Amino acid sequence: MINGEMTEQLAATDRGLHYGDGLFETVAIINGRPRLWSHHMERLQHGCAVLQLPPPDPQQLHAEALTLCGDAERAVLKLLLTRGSGGRGYRPPPTVTPQRLLFRYPWPDYPDLSQGACLRLCQMPLTGNPRLAGVKHLNRLEQVMARAEWEDPAIHEGVMCDLEGWVREGTMSNLFWVEGERLYTPDLSRCGVHGVMRGQVMALAKEMGIGVASGEITPQALAQVDEIFLTNSLIGIWPVGHFAGRDFSPGEVTRNLRSMLQMRLEVAG
Amino acid sequence: MINGEMTEQLAATDRGLHYGDGLFETVAIINGRPRLWSHHMERLQHGCAVLQLPPPDPQQLHAEALTLCGDAERAVLKLLLTRGSGGRGYRPPPTVTPQRLLFRYPWPDYPDLSQGACLRLCQMPLTGNPRLAGVKHLNRLEQVMARAEWEDPAIHEGVMCDLEGWVREGTMSNLFWVEGERLYTPDLSRCGVHGVMRGQVMALAKEMGIGVASGEITPQALAQVDEIFLTNSLIGIWPVGHFAGRDFSPGEVTRNLRSMLQMRLEVAG
Repeated sequence: MINGEMTEQLAATDRGLHYGDGLFETVAIINGRPRLWSHHMERLQHGCAVLQLPPPDPQQLHAEALTLCGDAERAVLKLLLTRGSGGRGYRPPPTVTPQRLLFRYPWPDYPDLSQGACLRLCQMPLTGNPRLAGVKHLNRLEQVMARAEWEDPAIHEGVMCDLEGWVREGTMSNLFWVEGERLYTPDLSRCGVHGVMRGQVMALAKEMGIGVASGEITPQALAQVDEIFLTNSLIGIWPVGHFAGRDFSPGEVTRNLRSMLQMRLEVAG
Repeated sequence: MINGEMTEQLAATDRGLHYGDGLFETVAIINGRPRLWSHHMERLQHGCAVLQLPPPDPQQLHAEALTLCGDAERAVLKLLLTRGSGGRGYRPPPTVTPQRLLFRYPWPDYPDLSQGACLRLCQMPLTGNPRLAGVKHLNRLEQVMARAEWEDPAIHEGVMCDLEGWVREGTMSNLFWVEGERLYTPDLSRCGVHGVMRGQVMALAKEMGIGVASGEITPQALAQVDEIFLTNSLIGIWPVGHFAGRDFSPGEVTRNLRSMLQMRLEVAG
């Protein structure tokens, strides 16, 4: 669906294609309703401010999401917002006509991860521009190349490090770890995406009296922590069961957070 | 033109749009012929190797370029190659059907730069992934944001620095400077684009007995050099006439290189 019309074709001159000049959101549709909608819209609006894009109307987007996915028990809604066509070269046009694209995908066939996800270390570094950090923009070649590093279906996700070798996030998820009673997640002020589910988990942990801190960790040190888990908007929390030659059993902090999160998400719809 | 068909619409599921998963080339069409074609094809093939994209057939692309632009005295050919649609999330599909898109644009209405271009310093840093450095891929949001920093038509180009503050390139050009008899251009092993015209100018300088070195320079130091010029596939060499509050008169090295380059390009067609 593009700008409210059912179509599968976009103008080939769109700046989203030419430069990655736009933003996206991946939203879980549960029982016909977009989950954590207001949080996705908040991030999208923030991204618009950073990219100097005219912000979309969240109510219009919501209506379009329902038209496209309202009949789905579970589905994935991907929402793209681009700066549209126009401008000479990199320079944005004086008048921007943003294009909003909504895609409906079937719910992914995720493996049973009760024993925990198998995590690998990616070679492709994650770079990032402090001025674009946290924003879910369309420049995602690093994630594509990182995800292309493995084909083994027994490996579920890859960890990406920045150029200095610090762990930042997964290719499609944010990462947390537990040491003692404390929860840590990498600082994302220089690169990475501020995941909506990451924000939910951080808020939830605080409510539960679990201290959450921004941390820096190497892959070597990550292999020694008590618990690791991953988050994203579709998976919620995935406990990590294997990383860097070590097996992890699902730990207590992860288990508690996961149960609370599931309850919370069910209540939130 | 997409895959040889005259159309202006692309599948909205294309990975070029979703992730910037592809490459591009901007080629000058002079008297109906693409200039420096083999060099553009060489860079494109190198980019394909880096991105693990099936390389296109240069002869087919050439034929399509002639169909689209063969009647143009002067025009700009933009060539996009994407990984096409498919794959779940970032993961590339097992079988890739690359999409090749050719666009014809009128020759830009460049200002008369006999007095030299006016250059500014951009706030947006240029980051870069060493594994993607030099490749003309579709992740160009930094250039878009840098170019959006000014509207004054009297300013012709902006200089971008990396996160450490070293000058790397212009938003749409490579940069050279002259100190004494020697020519310098920033090292691009960590970020930036290996411009086709940059390669031509470096080769030409060597032939002319001008030493060329990779250099690191701050914007402050750049304002103190003898000569500065910019290169890209359309403009050839642009002498810089103004940067950071200082006026530069077109210098001898720039003038000589420019005359030689113009002759060379005319001979090459």
